[in-house]
Amino acid sequence: MKEFSLIDTYFRDVSFQRKDVLLGIGDDCAITQIPAGQALATTTDTLVSGVHFLPDADPKAIAQKAIAVNLSDLAAMGAEPAWLSLSLSLPNVDENWLKAFSEGFKELTEYYSIQLIGGDTVQGPLAITITAQGFVAADQALKRSGAKPGDFVYVTGTLGDAGLGLDILQDHTDVDNAEHKAYLLNRLHYPSPRVFAGTSLRRVANACIDISDGLLADIKHILKASQCGACLQLDKLPLSSAMVDSVDQDSAFHYALSSGDDYELLFTVSEEQKSSVDRVLACSNVPATCIGQINGAVGKVDLKFNDESYAYSQTGFEHFNSGESSNKHRNNAKRA
Amino acid sequence: MKEFSLIDTYFRDVSFQRKDVLLGIGDDCAITQIPAGQALATTTDTLVSGVHFLPDADPKAIAQKAIAVNLSDLAAMGAEPAWLSLSLSLPNVDENWLKAFSEGFKELTEYYSIQLIGGDTVQGPLAITITAQGFVAADQALKRSGAKPGDFVYVTGTLGDAGLGLDILQDHTDVDNAEHKAYLLNRLHYPSPRVFAGTSLRRVANACIDISDGLLADIKHILKASQCGACLQLDKLPLSSAMVDSVDQDSAFHYALSSGDDYELLFTVSEEQKSSVDRVLACSNVPATCIGQINGAVGKVDLKFNDESYAYSQTGFEHFNSGESSNKHRNNAKRA
Repeated sequence: MKEFSLIDTYFRDVSFQRKDVLLGIGDDCAITQIPAGQALATTTDTLVSGVHFLPDADPKAIAQKAIAVNLSDLAAMGAEPAWLSLSLSLPNVDENWLKAFSEGFKELTEYYSIQLIGGDTVQGPLAITITAQGFVAADQALKRSGAKPGDFVYVTGTLGDAGLGLDILQDHTDVDNAEHKAYLLNRLHYPSPRVFAGTSLRRVANACIDISDGLLADIKHILKASQCGACLQLDKLPLSSAMVDSVDQDSAFHYALSSGDDYELLFTVSEEQKSSVDRVLACSNVPATCIGQINGAVGKVDLKFNDESYAYSQTGFEHFNSGESSNKHRNNAKRA
Repeated sequence: MKEFSLIDTYFRDVSFQRKDVLLGIGDDCAITQIPAGQALATTTDTLVSGVHFLPDADPKAIAQKAIAVNLSDLAAMGAEPAWLSLSLSLPNVDENWLKAFSEGFKELTEYYSIQLIGGDTVQGPLAITITAQGFVAADQALKRSGAKPGDFVYVTGTLGDAGLGLDILQDHTDVDNAEHKAYLLNRLHYPSPRVFAGTSLRRVANACIDISDGLLADIKHILKASQCGACLQLDKLPLSSAMVDSVDQDSAFHYALSSGDDYELLFTVSEEQKSSVDRVLACSNVPATCIGQINGAVGKVDLKFNDESYAYSQTGFEHFNSGESSNKHRNNAKRA
């Protein structure tokens, strides 16, 4: 099986066909058309086997996560996703793996009406790099730098589920309730990029980021870019019933604050726009919760629980850490 | 050293700053502006350590080759390069390696006035994926499918040098003339993407592709897309003096026909446009040579030498081949 037939066989027809793609897979470049008045939003993310997913992970889930993490970056910018480029590094040609991977790819690109426009297939350790492109009017892009003192801090969905799912997957903990366990693993394997929430928020939010490395790590990017601080109310953190029923409260806060892979949106809105948040998010069917406010010393996050200070030190997951897993404090799960 | 400071330290300021980049490295996406009337050209290429370069290769050369192979794809489309996204997979943080890599990056992005707008840094086996974006008016894009019977077939520069350079590097052959050897290795390590030739050719060429997998393999992509055949005159193939002085004639033809990594442009022009080729390429300072004509059975390449048929079977390099290197017929180098 040669590289070229590989791309032809598995990837030429795996996605929705858009009218703005003038030339798709099969030439030296893709040629696409940006709508008038829109700027181009571009993001790139790589998933490496053994680092971002287990080598024996379901290829469908790998494909969908690789797409989702990129769409999540577009959503965080308020951009509408349009096109994907895929670079696939494979140790060998496993037709069953490729078939499942491309089916996962097809399912998600069709759901979001986005098109795979090109890429590269190389022999190498299993890794997937996707570059996603989308549109946003330049003056509506949701930058990290737009937060202002007094803004309210919101997050979509629930936090920490993927982190608890990872600990279950890696046998660091277990959850006896089968439905909860399935939910948590699903949140890890099939994150939901908040695409429609992101485009809806561009009319009301001042700043936005997606939570990929943990709430605390990611809010700090907003605080640094916006030169401000924040106060978060832990008692307001949105937690799933699977989380609340499975671990004690401090562990739930830990997962919500520091575990990665949530792919929820963290955004800030002014007091004037606060009443519009629920309305603009209604059509995307994603709930958002106000968890705090922008204020205080630049770069600093004050954590409160029922208006009392809450001491906490663990920061979010970082690549190239000292080698110690950030899971080490996650072993105090409740048993049913 | 954390991922975020890694990107900040080495890559935030490594490139030319363009006015059409509204938001560069440091947010969830880059935001860029396409000129009115232009379509977007996008290409992605991955280089894997041990497959596309040796693990101990000079990081500066790796950076520049990773950029060059992408710019070559834009050139083959007639597109003007604008922006790069970089995904860097690194087994560990080697500051000297990163410094040299980013310096190579800076040098080439400044030379071509292109900007690094974002990317991802992950822990994993050494691999570099670059997505390059550029512009071309939709009706001027040089597609593979535009070749017509009677068109003349041209190539830029000289062919086969990088292939001979690779055989020298891998000790499959040697070249005693130090100047020739340095030239051949330089052609392998620092390919010259034909960026300005590509944009110049969009007014005269009917079809274009870059030669990355070997002349024979790549012309077949044009023949397939254009539903035509071709006849090539081997006695017309442009060969460097380093090639001619170092190997016998059949070996030189083999390198020119089948070795990869040349990154020259292969293009076709109608009889009416033939007289314009040298003129439009003059400002890019890249010579082009007419090596044959589009005609004959669909998908078939007739090779001639002094108007006689020339028997040849070896096809270009393909990933996921049987494991046998395509270098196996390359051992008959002349010794000085």
